[in-house]
Amino acid sequence: MLEKNTETFLGCDANYKNADIVLFGAPFDSSTSFRPGTRFAAKTIRGDSFGLETYSPYQNKDLCDSQILDAGDLELSFGNSELALEQISEFSEQIIADKKIPFMIGGEHLVTLGSFRAAANAFPNICLIQFDAHTDLRDSYLNVSLSHAAVVRRCWDIVGDDRIYQFGIRSGEKHEFEWAKKHTHLQKFNFGGLDECIHQLQGIPVYFTLDLDVLDPSVLPGTGTPEPGGVTFHELHNAVLRIMQTLHIVACDVNELSPVYDASGASTAVACKIIREMLLALQKK
Amino acid sequence: MLEKNTETFLGCDANYKNADIVLFGAPFDSSTSFRPGTRFAAKTIRGDSFGLETYSPYQNKDLCDSQILDAGDLELSFGNSELALEQISEFSEQIIADKKIPFMIGGEHLVTLGSFRAAANAFPNICLIQFDAHTDLRDSYLNVSLSHAAVVRRCWDIVGDDRIYQFGIRSGEKHEFEWAKKHTHLQKFNFGGLDECIHQLQGIPVYFTLDLDVLDPSVLPGTGTPEPGGVTFHELHNAVLRIMQTLHIVACDVNELSPVYDASGASTAVACKIIREMLLALQKK
Amino acid sequence: MLEKNTETFLGCDANYKNADIVLFGAPFDSSTSFRPGTRFAAKTIRGDSFGLETYSPYQNKDLCDSQILDAGDLELSFGNSELALEQISEFSEQIIADKKIPFMIGGEHLVTLGSFRAAANAFPNICLIQFDAHTDLRDSYLNVSLSHAAVVRRCWDIVGDDRIYQFGIRSGEKHEFEWAKKHTHLQKFNFGGLDECIHQLQGIPVYFTLDLDVLDPSVLPGTGTPEPGGVTFHELHNAVLRIMQTLHIVACDVNELSPVYDASGASTAVACKIIREMLLALQKK
Amino acid sequence: MLEKNTETFLGCDANYKNADIVLFGAPFDSSTSFRPGTRFAAKTIRGDSFGLETYSPYQNKDLCDSQILDAGDLELSFGNSELALEQISEFSEQIIADKKIPFMIGGEHLVTLGSFRAAANAFPNICLIQFDAHTDLRDSYLNVSLSHAAVVRRCWDIVGDDRIYQFGIRSGEKHEFEWAKKHTHLQKFNFGGLDECIHQLQGIPVYFTLDLDVLDPSVLPGTGTPEPGGVTFHELHNAVLRIMQTLHIVACDVNELSPVYDASGASTAVACKIIREMLLALQKK
Amino acid sequence: MLEKNTETFLGCDANYKNADIVLFGAPFDSSTSFRPGTRFAAKTIRGDSFGLETYSPYQNKDLCDSQILDAGDLELSFGNSELALEQISEFSEQIIADKKIPFMIGGEHLVTLGSFRAAANAFPNICLIQFDAHTDLRDSYLNVSLSHAAVVRRCWDIVGDDRIYQFGIRSGEKHEFEWAKKHTHLQKFNFGGLDECIHQLQGIPVYFTLDLDVLDPSVLPGTGTPEPGGVTFHELHNAVLRIMQTLHIVACDVNELSPVYDASGASTAVACKIIREMLLALQKK
Amino acid sequence: MLEKNTETFLGCDANYKNADIVLFGAPFDSSTSFRPGTRFAAKTIRGDSFGLETYSPYQNKDLCDSQILDAGDLELSFGNSELALEQISEFSEQIIADKKIPFMIGGEHLVTLGSFRAAANAFPNICLIQFDAHTDLRDSYLNVSLSHAAVVRRCWDIVGDDRIYQFGIRSGEKHEFEWAKKHTHLQKFNFGGLDECIHQLQGIPVYFTLDLDVLDPSVLPGTGTPEPGGVTFHELHNAVLRIMQTLHIVACDVNELSPVYDASGASTAVACKIIREMLLALQKK
Repeated sequence: MLEKNTETFLGCDANYKNADIVLFGAPFDSSTSFRPGTRFAAKTIRGDSFGLETYSPYQNKDLCDSQILDAGDLELSFGNSELALEQISEFSEQIIADKKIPFMIGGEHLVTLGSFRAAANAFPNICLIQFDAHTDLRDSYLNVSLSHAAVVRRCWDIVGDDRIYQFGIRSGEKHEFEWAKKHTHLQKFNFGGLDECIHQLQGIPVYFTLDLDVLDPSVLPGTGTPEPGGVTFHELHNAVLRIMQTLHIVACDVNELSPVYDASGASTAVACKIIREMLLALQKK
Repeated sequence: MLEKNTETFLGCDANYKNADIVLFGAPFDSSTSFRPGTRFAAKTIRGDSFGLETYSPYQNKDLCDSQILDAGDLELSFGNSELALEQISEFSEQIIADKKIPFMIGGEHLVTLGSFRAAANAFPNICLIQFDAHTDLRDSYLNVSLSHAAVVRRCWDIVGDDRIYQFGIRSGEKHEFEWAKKHTHLQKFNFGGLDECIHQLQGIPVYFTLDLDVLDPSVLPGTGTPEPGGVTFHELHNAVLRIMQTLHIVACDVNELSPVYDASGASTAVACKIIREMLLALQKK
Repeated sequence: MLEKNTETFLGCDANYKNADIVLFGAPFDSSTSFRPGTRFAAKTIRGDSFGLETYSPYQNKDLCDSQILDAGDLELSFGNSELALEQISEFSEQIIADKKIPFMIGGEHLVTLGSFRAAANAFPNICLIQFDAHTDLRDSYLNVSLSHAAVVRRCWDIVGDDRIYQFGIRSGEKHEFEWAKKHTHLQKFNFGGLDECIHQLQGIPVYFTLDLDVLDPSVLPGTGTPEPGGVTFHELHNAVLRIMQTLHIVACDVNELSPVYDASGASTAVACKIIREMLLALQKK
Repeated sequence: MLEKNTETFLGCDANYKNADIVLFGAPFDSSTSFRPGTRFAAKTIRGDSFGLETYSPYQNKDLCDSQILDAGDLELSFGNSELALEQISEFSEQIIADKKIPFMIGGEHLVTLGSFRAAANAFPNICLIQFDAHTDLRDSYLNVSLSHAAVVRRCWDIVGDDRIYQFGIRSGEKHEFEWAKKHTHLQKFNFGGLDECIHQLQGIPVYFTLDLDVLDPSVLPGTGTPEPGGVTFHELHNAVLRIMQTLHIVACDVNELSPVYDASGASTAVACKIIREMLLALQKK
Repeated sequence: MLEKNTETFLGCDANYKNADIVLFGAPFDSSTSFRPGTRFAAKTIRGDSFGLETYSPYQNKDLCDSQILDAGDLELSFGNSELALEQISEFSEQIIADKKIPFMIGGEHLVTLGSFRAAANAFPNICLIQFDAHTDLRDSYLNVSLSHAAVVRRCWDIVGDDRIYQFGIRSGEKHEFEWAKKHTHLQKFNFGGLDECIHQLQGIPVYFTLDLDVLDPSVLPGTGTPEPGGVTFHELHNAVLRIMQTLHIVACDVNELSPVYDASGASTAVACKIIREMLLALQKK
Repeated sequence: MLEKNTETFLGCDANYKNADIVLFGAPFDSSTSFRPGTRFAAKTIRGDSFGLETYSPYQNKDLCDSQILDAGDLELSFGNSELALEQISEFSEQIIADKKIPFMIGGEHLVTLGSFRAAANAFPNICLIQFDAHTDLRDSYLNVSLSHAAVVRRCWDIVGDDRIYQFGIRSGEKHEFEWAKKHTHLQKFNFGGLDECIHQLQGIPVYFTLDLDVLDPSVLPGTGTPEPGGVTFHELHNAVLRIMQTLHIVACDVNELSPVYDASGASTAVACKIIREMLLALQKK
C-alpha cells in the first residue's frame, strides 16, 4: 500500500511512546501589537528544515540517532489568549507527565506562559532562563496583561523573585530595568554572567526560553520587532549549547520567528539550525 | 511658525466641529486565524491616498468641497477582543451623538461589531447591509465567539431576523447557508436583489459594512482570505454608489484590506478609490 | 495518546483503502527554462487550502462527504527527468490498478507525461483534454525532448492523431500551430467547441490536464510563463465542471502554479478552489 | 571565435541600416513624485520578453520576419529633466531622419515629450493619440512644469488645440477636465469614439503614446499610480491594433511600467505582449 | 472633543516653541541613478519607530524627557533638484534662526546640500563630518552637478579645503580618492582617526551627515547602493555617540535608507535606533 | 550611426582577441532540489555591477586597465544535466586553448564540473580549491549522480586523492566528513590551513571554485541553501585575494547566488564586489 509522505522537522518521526522529546508548534500571535506573523513559524521551520542535514559537525551527533516526535501544530483559539494558553498548557502537561521533554516552537513569546505553567506545576522549584532582546516585564501592555510584552512578568507571578535569568536584554522601559534589579537576574546586551548562572542552577529543573530576537537583526531579520545591537550566531550557538548540555532542562521553547519578514529564508535557516543543535545537545544525557 | 505636515486621507482635514463625517482607523486583527495584516490597512490607505485625486469624474464632486475629518487610528487592546470592541464602540458613539457619521476603516471584519453596537444603540430600527465573500455567520470559530468569522452572527444577536442583507456571498459552511435562509437576506455570488433591498430600506437607518474580499482576488488580492469568483470593480462601484446615494446611512465601514499581501499596492488603490467614492456619495444628501 | 496534526489538502484524509481519489504532489520543475518554482505548488496549495471551506455553494456538495486521500508529495529525482517521470508513472499505475483516480498536483507541465503514461497503459483508447495557454507541441526545446514545452507532443507519441483536445491556446511557434492542424483538435484563445468535444468523448476514458496558465494573468499571476489574454475564473470554472461531471475521467492533474511568483496568495487560492470544485465534481458519479 | 550573447527584445536584432523600427529604452523617472521604478522597465521587458514567442496567433505574423533593432537603453541625466529630454529628442531625431520609426520604452510619461518634440519637428501637422488613466494636463506639478503630470500639456504647447486625442481617462483635477473640453478630444473611461478619431486622422502623421496605466490594475498592477476602473487587456489589444494597422504612425512609445511593483512579472508580460503586437502591426504596411 | 492620533517619530511631539530639536523628512531622490526609494525613508522610519522604546539602556536617557518636534515631511519639487534644495534650505534656516537644531531625515544624500547651505550661512566656520561608503566627490555625475554622487564636492564648494572629514569610505573613482588627498580628510574603510578629528573640532560648529550605507549591507541592506565591507552596528553606534556627545553639532542628517529594499524592516529598525540614540545624545548638553 | 548600449559586467568589454580573461554566465539549476533561482545570477550580477566602481581602493587597481570580455550567458539545455555540462565544457575548452582564463558565473554548483573537466583536460596536474558551506561529496543525491550535492565528488572522480582542498565546510552527512578524511583536504568552518595550502600549491595549476554560501547568511542571504555560521565578508575577501594573487589560477567560478532570495540586492552586491576583486587580483601577474 502507498506510504503517505508527511512533513516533520528533519528526522523527527519517532512514535510517541519511544520519544524522549516532543516537538510541537504553537501558532499563535494574537497579542502581537506591532508586526504579526509568528503564527507561521513552526510550519515554515518544518518545511525548510530539509535544507539542513541531520548531522552536526559541531557536536558530531546525528538526529537519526535520536528519538524525537514532531507532533505538528496545535489548533489554538485565535482571539482568546487565555483559552490558547490553556490549550498549550494541557498539551505540555501530558508530555511532562509521560516523562518526556516538551519542545515548543512559537508563535509570539506569550505562548511560553502556557508551557511554563505546565512545567512549573510539575517542577515547583523550576527556574527560567530567557534569551531575549526585550525585558518582557511590563505589568500590562495596551491594557492587556496577557501580552507578549508582559510574558516574563507573568512567569514571575508564578515563581517569584530570583528565579528568572535574563540575557541579551537591550530594550525596555526605564521602569522595567529598575524593576528587574529587584526581582530578576538581568544581563544587559550579552551573555556575561552565564557561567555564574550555570553554576548556580546545577541540578535544578530549568525551563529555557529562546526569543530569537536576541540575535542581531543582521542574523535574524525575520522577527516582529527587530532590535539592532544583538548577539552573533556564534555567540548564541555557544551559549545555547552550554545550557542544553550542562543543565537539567525540563522544557524549552524557541519563539518569535516571523517568516512574513524573512523573504530570503535566512532567518528560518537560523531557527532550524539552532533547534537542531538544541535537540542534539539534549540527546543522551 | 513652522506648519506641521500631518498625514490624513486625501483632503480630509476638517476640524471635528465642522465635520459631517469622521473617518478613523481600527487597526485590529487579533482574531484573524489565517493570514493577519489588516491592522496596517488604515495607515497604508492614508499614505497611498495621495496617488488619487480629490475629484471624481464619475460623480463630478470633489473632496475639497466636503467637511470630513480623518481622526487617525485608534489605539486598540491587542489580544483582548472585547476590550478593543468597547474602545471602538465608545468612539463611534460620541461621533453619532454629535450628529456625524462614523466611517471606520478596519482591521479585520470583527471591528464592525464595535461600531455597529454604537449605531444600533442610537438607531434601534437599524438594518445592516453587508457586502462580503463570506457568510460570517458562525456561532463561534475555534471556540471563540468574538471572531471575524462570526461577526454578522453577533450583529444578528442584536437586531434579530430579517434585518440583515448579505450580498456577494460565495463561501461558508453548509449549515451557515441553511441558517441564513431563516434569518437573513442572503444573495449568493453577486448583487442580485439589490433594487429590492434598496426599495425596502427607504428611510430606515442603515449600517453599511463592506468587506473588500467581496471583490474578485484579481481586483483585490491583498486580503487575508482571498476567495476567487468575486465581483468586478465596476459592479462594486455601481452597487456602493447606489446604496450611499439613496439610503439613510448612519454609519459604515470598509474592512479586510491586508497590505502585507499587496506588494503592488493595487489593492490599496482600490480601497482608496472606493472610500473616496463613498465619502463623495455621502456628501450633501 | 497525543494525536499528530498532519497537514493535508482540505478534508482529504481518507485512508487509502476507502479512498476513491488519491491526490498527490509531483514537485518537479527541472526542465523549466524560464522561471522555476512550480515544485512548491503542491505544498503551498495544501497549506493555503484552509482558507477555503469544504462546502461548495456552487455544487451544494461537501468534501466531508467524499473519500479522498491526500498522499503528500513524491520525492522525485531532481536533475533527471526520465527518472522522475518513471517515479510518477509507477505511483499512478498502482492507484489506477486499485480502481482509484490519481489526481496529481504539479510541478511543471512535464509531470503530466508520467501520469499519462500510466493511464494510457491501463486505458489504451484514452483521450487527452488539455487546458493551456501554450501548445506544448515542440519536438524538442533547447535540445531536450523531455521538456515542459514538448509534453503534449510526447503524449501524442503515445496516442497518435485525433486523440488530443486543446483549449485556450494562445502561444506557440508558428509551426506548432500548423502541426496541430493535422494532428490534434486545437481551439485558440477560449473554450469554443467544448460542447462538441464533450459530445464526442462520451463513454471514452479521458485524462484531463489543466495548465493553470490558461487563466488570464490577472486571475493567476503566479505561474512560470504568464501569457496575457487568457480566460476568466468563471469561464474556467464552468468548463472544468462540465468536463468533470459529464466525462469518464480516469486521471487528471493541475499544474504550473508557481508560488514564488504569488506574493499575495491569490493564485494559490484560485488553484485551491479549482481543485476543490474538481474533487467535488468527481464525487458520486 | 566566440559569439557574444547580447540581450535584446525578442528577436529584435536587425542592424541599424536595415531596420524599419528602432526600439530603445528611456530609463528615466526623476519627476515621478509618488512611486518610482519605471526606470527599470525597458531592461526588465527585454529580459522577460523571452517568456513570449515571436509569433502572434492573433495577427499570424512573426517578429523573425521583421527588421527591428533593439538599440538598448539611453544613458540619461538623472536629476535634470531638461537635459534628459534633449538626449531623448536627439536620439529620436536621428532615427526619424533615417526614415525609421522610433519606438521608445519609458520610463515615466515625461519621456514622451522628448520623442514627441523630435517627431513634431519632422512632421509639423502631427497629431497625438494618448491612452492613459490620467489627463496629464496640469500646467505644473509641485512647482515643476517638466512633470509626468504635465506632459500632455507640454505637448499641447507644441501643437495647440484639437490635435490631441485622449482615451481611457479616469483621473485628474476638476480644472483639467474642464480645460480639456476646450483644447483636446478627451474620452472618459474607455475607447468610445475611437472609430471617429481613426476616421479623422487618415493620412495624418500620428504619434501614439501608451501609458500602460490605462489598463485596470488587475491586469497591470505594476505601475507607479494604479488607478482602478480601467480597460481590459482585450479592449486595449483591439484598440492598439486598430491604431497601429490603420494610421500613419511616425513614432510611438509605451511607458509607466514599474517592475518594482510587479512581483509576479505579470505586468511585464502584458507590456511585452502589447509591444510585440504593436511591432507586428507596424510591419509591412 | 475627539483627539486626533497623529503619527510622529517616537515621542517627538513637542510644540515648536519649546522644541530644542526639529526633526523633519526630506523625501527626495530625483538624482538617484541606480535604485530609487529613499523618498519613503522618513515616513517609514516614523511608522516603525514604535517598535522601539523611548528609553535607551545604553545612555540611560529617555525621549520623554526631551523637547523634540517631529515636523513631518517637506513637500519637495520632484524633478527639479535646485528648487528642492532651496525648499530644504529655507526650512533649516528658520530652525537655526530660532536657535534650534535641524535634524533632517533623507532622502538621497543630495538633500544634505540644502541643509548644509543653511548651516554654513549661519555658522561660517562650520566643518562637515561625513560617515559614508562613497566619496561623493565627483564634479558631476551623468552631466549633472547636483547629484548624490557629487554632494560633498558641492559642500566643499562652500567651505573649501580641510573642513571636511570623511570616514568609512570604501568606494569611488580613482581620481576622487586622489582629489581627497589634497582637499579633505578621508579615512578609508573605518573610523580610524576619529579621536584626532574630535580633538581638532572642539568648540567649532559641526554639521554631521550620516549616510547609512557606511554600515555593512548585512546590517543595512535597505539602501540604494549597498557596498559590502562596511562597519558594524556597534562601531557606528560608538562613533556616532562620541560625535554627538562631545562636539558642537549645529545641524545633522541621516540619509539613504531605502525602504523599498528593506523587506524585513531590519534596516529601518537600524535607522530608527541610530536616530533615537543621536537625539538622546544631543539632549541637555 | 547609432551605437548600441549592451550590458556587460562593469567595464568588461574587451574584444575576444585581446582579452586575458573571459567572463561568462552558466544559467543552470536543474538539479537544485531545495530552492531554485541561481539561473538568474549572472544576469542580475551584470545589471547590478553598475552600483560598484571599476576602481578598488583595496588593491589600488582599476578594471579599466584590464582586458576582460564579458561574453554573456550560455544557452544551456534545461532538464538535461549531461548536455548542459558538455556545452559548458566545450566553451571553457576553447577559452583555455586560446590561452585565456575562463571565469564562470553559476548557476548551481554542478556547473563547476563542466568547466573543471575542460581545465583538467588541459592541465592534468590541476588541483581544486573549494570554498563552500557544504561538502558536496555525495556519491549521488536523490538517485542522481550529476547533482550539485555531488559535484566535488565528481571532480574527485577525475583527479583522485589529495588534489582537492575544501575550506569553510560546515554541513554534510556524517559519512561525507569521514570520506573526506581519506580523500581530500577538508577544513571545517573557516580558512584555517590556507597558508599551508598556498605553500603546497605554488606553481601548480589551480581551479578555484567559490560557492558563495561559504559566507554567513547575514552577509549573503540570497542563496539556495543558506547555512548559518559562515565566514564574514572580510575573511572571504582576504582569503580570495591571497589565492588569486599568489597561485597559478587557470580557471575559476563563482556560483550559487540566487537573486530570487535577494530582495534587497545586498547579496548580489557582495557577489559583484568579490568578482571585481578576483578579476583585479588576476590582473598582470
